[in-house]
Amino acid sequence: MSITDVRSHRPLVHCITNYVTVNDCANALLAIGAAPVMADDYAEVADITQLSGALVLNIGTLNARTIRSMLRSGRAARTKGIPVILDPVGAGASALRTRTAQKIIKIVKPSVIRGNLSEIGALLSGNAKTRGVDAAAEDTGSDATRRAEEAGRQLARHTGAIVAITGKTDVVSDGNRIIRIHNGHSLMPTVTGTGCMATAITAAFCSAAQAEGKPLIDAVALALALTGLAGERAALRLPHGGSASFRTAFIDELSLIDDRILEREGRLDTAS
Amino acid sequence: MSITDVRSHRPLVHCITNYVTVNDCANALLAIGAAPVMADDYAEVADITQLSGALVLNIGTLNARTIRSMLRSGRAARTKGIPVILDPVGAGASALRTRTAQKIIKIVKPSVIRGNLSEIGALLSGNAKTRGVDAAAEDTGSDATRRAEEAGRQLARHTGAIVAITGKTDVVSDGNRIIRIHNGHSLMPTVTGTGCMATAITAAFCSAAQAEGKPLIDAVALALALTGLAGERAALRLPHGGSASFRTAFIDELSLIDDRILEREGRLDTAS
Amino acid sequence: MSITDVRSHRPLVHCITNYVTVNDCANALLAIGAAPVMADDYAEVADITQLSGALVLNIGTLNARTIRSMLRSGRAARTKGIPVILDPVGAGASALRTRTAQKIIKIVKPSVIRGNLSEIGALLSGNAKTRGVDAAAEDTGSDATRRAEEAGRQLARHTGAIVAITGKTDVVSDGNRIIRIHNGHSLMPTVTGTGCMATAITAAFCSAAQAEGKPLIDAVALALALTGLAGERAALRLPHGGSASFRTAFIDELSLIDDRILEREGRLDTAS
Repeated sequence: MSITDVRSHRPLVHCITNYVTVNDCANALLAIGAAPVMADDYAEVADITQLSGALVLNIGTLNARTIRSMLRSGRAARTKGIPVILDPVGAGASALRTRTAQKIIKIVKPSVIRGNLSEIGALLSGNAKTRGVDAAAEDTGSDATRRAEEAGRQLARHTGAIVAITGKTDVVSDGNRIIRIHNGHSLMPTVTGTGCMATAITAAFCSAAQAEGKPLIDAVALALALTGLAGERAALRLPHGGSASFRTAFIDELSLIDDRILEREGRLDTAS
Repeated sequence: MSITDVRSHRPLVHCITNYVTVNDCANALLAIGAAPVMADDYAEVADITQLSGALVLNIGTLNARTIRSMLRSGRAARTKGIPVILDPVGAGASALRTRTAQKIIKIVKPSVIRGNLSEIGALLSGNAKTRGVDAAAEDTGSDATRRAEEAGRQLARHTGAIVAITGKTDVVSDGNRIIRIHNGHSLMPTVTGTGCMATAITAAFCSAAQAEGKPLIDAVALALALTGLAGERAALRLPHGGSASFRTAFIDELSLIDDRILEREGRLDTAS
Repeated sequence: MSITDVRSHRPLVHCITNYVTVNDCANALLAIGAAPVMADDYAEVADITQLSGALVLNIGTLNARTIRSMLRSGRAARTKGIPVILDPVGAGASALRTRTAQKIIKIVKPSVIRGNLSEIGALLSGNAKTRGVDAAAEDTGSDATRRAEEAGRQLARHTGAIVAITGKTDVVSDGNRIIRIHNGHSLMPTVTGTGCMATAITAAFCSAAQAEGKPLIDAVALALALTGLAGERAALRLPHGGSASFRTAFIDELSLIDDRILEREGRLDTAS
């Protein structure tokens, strides 16, 4: 699995996503060589999914109208057999979010779930507390990685999805294997959208992996390594610092990093 | 017709547009000296159109609610006599999009339709295939310009609108005349929003042309030349490359290019 | 009251806001050390407000669905006792906007109302004319500051809210005191979102002030001084000019300015 696979397949990724970071997601997909299509009306989502190579369901600004569209699109994606990536933004922050994420998991059976530790925790317990769409304090404690591995493995077994938990160290699990990704930078949570972009990028990588007959779990891990590495390299580019310049440099890096750089600077390891 | 006309009239452009690139459209309008107003609720769109100098109907993330608003706004614009610019984003990608674009054409009779070749093709045939909101492969073939001229002229005759088809070479037709615009840069499709911004800029130019009693077709062509030239000049500004930096530089150039630069570097020619 | 208060409390700000500048608002809040949460579905807004330290109601792209959510959220905020900041974007431009802003004032009783002079005028008279979401010509006349002081004081007495009117000179009034803020830059109206970001930043400052038991009026004035100063400092950063670079530099400055800089360069004075 490689960035070259994404760039040569140029997967069309259908995103039903929040209006806060939708522009970032579209530009991130273009930057890595994929193509975005955003469409959320009930009357057309199945048509659009049918054209696409992967589907992102991101509940960041969900509403009654788009929830119905997500479920319809999700069903179309399962019928077509393309990867569905769920981003349970803010699960735990409201009953609606937790319930919707769980309904999507039950009905659509996503291939991948990508969230932070408190969101994933909310999906496991049904009542975890999330502080908005933010990584909660507990997400960054010293044993966060160990807890992420446990939560990831547990939710993966529960749901059949590959679970990706992003944080200081990212963790990906299919219920058995664990892959840790050590790329990333402390500036990433200072701008909105890095999580949503990670999800969109993951969708593109999963589509390319499917086309190449390669395992999804490696595609997910590589997508997160690329995302984290873009953050690291962006941080080196800032003449004065500043969060908006970081965000520009981050998307720039997504468009500039190639497989040679990713192989050299990606830091992944596989746990038991 | 000139950028100075736009800057002196400062036309207010009412946009009912997609949430992916809406911020880019607002900033592009401000950059060229126009003023944006985004409003899509059925209860207010006619009031807002009534205040405005042009109306953009962009179906990029259309839904049942906003389709009704587009039709109402479109009628108000026709009654007031201001230019309506239709951007049939993704026509051909879903039945809803193709049908909605055709309904707008029939009911609102837009002054200008701006799309890429596959979108315009979908409006002609009613069943062309579009790959999302992306320029399809066939759009960039060697005889794309010839086919764009044919499609543009045909749709213009069909609808009474001026038709603008953007691609490697942009083509504008009123059914008789053809203007070709050779400005543009290969980085433009690497970011989302350049098409939507072209449409919004076109609306501002049409409003200023109407106020000056000048022909709309020249306003449309000049708007596309400005857009393409901004892409060319932005590409020269990038120290490291990177798609997000290109997007920033592109909007910068919209705010910096003046008539002197546009006259010197605009590359337009008129076919038979 | 200080930026340090905001950074140490890290207030969660619930925004029901327009889709044009929502990404800017989220990034501005993160830049100053606060945390954004955007949520607008009727079924969840009360839950989200309950978690938050302040609520922004921005009517920039209001619709029938989100108006109901704004009222529900507003009620939840009053019950919880957190500051509510109303941004009456485009009040006066449509009957719906004027009426909705007035309904929010009546039912929710916001702590702060932040607008430009024509929007505030529309709320006073119920029929002022606004040119879209733009500062109208009269907003920038030579006696604009005097008229803003009068309008601010009057609306504050009328509503019980602190009223902030941004323009060349910003004016804040609680009905008795007037604070003038002289920070700001002429490039600020060349990009969309500076007004909306000022409102979001104000919300974060009000939440921190409440937590510290400090007066809201000083928090509002300091938030506007920070916003204006970010504009001034951003303008000094531009190698070539350009409106998109200005916007990036503006958000950068929000993340870089600290209390030392703000004390040195903030220009506030108190009128009678």
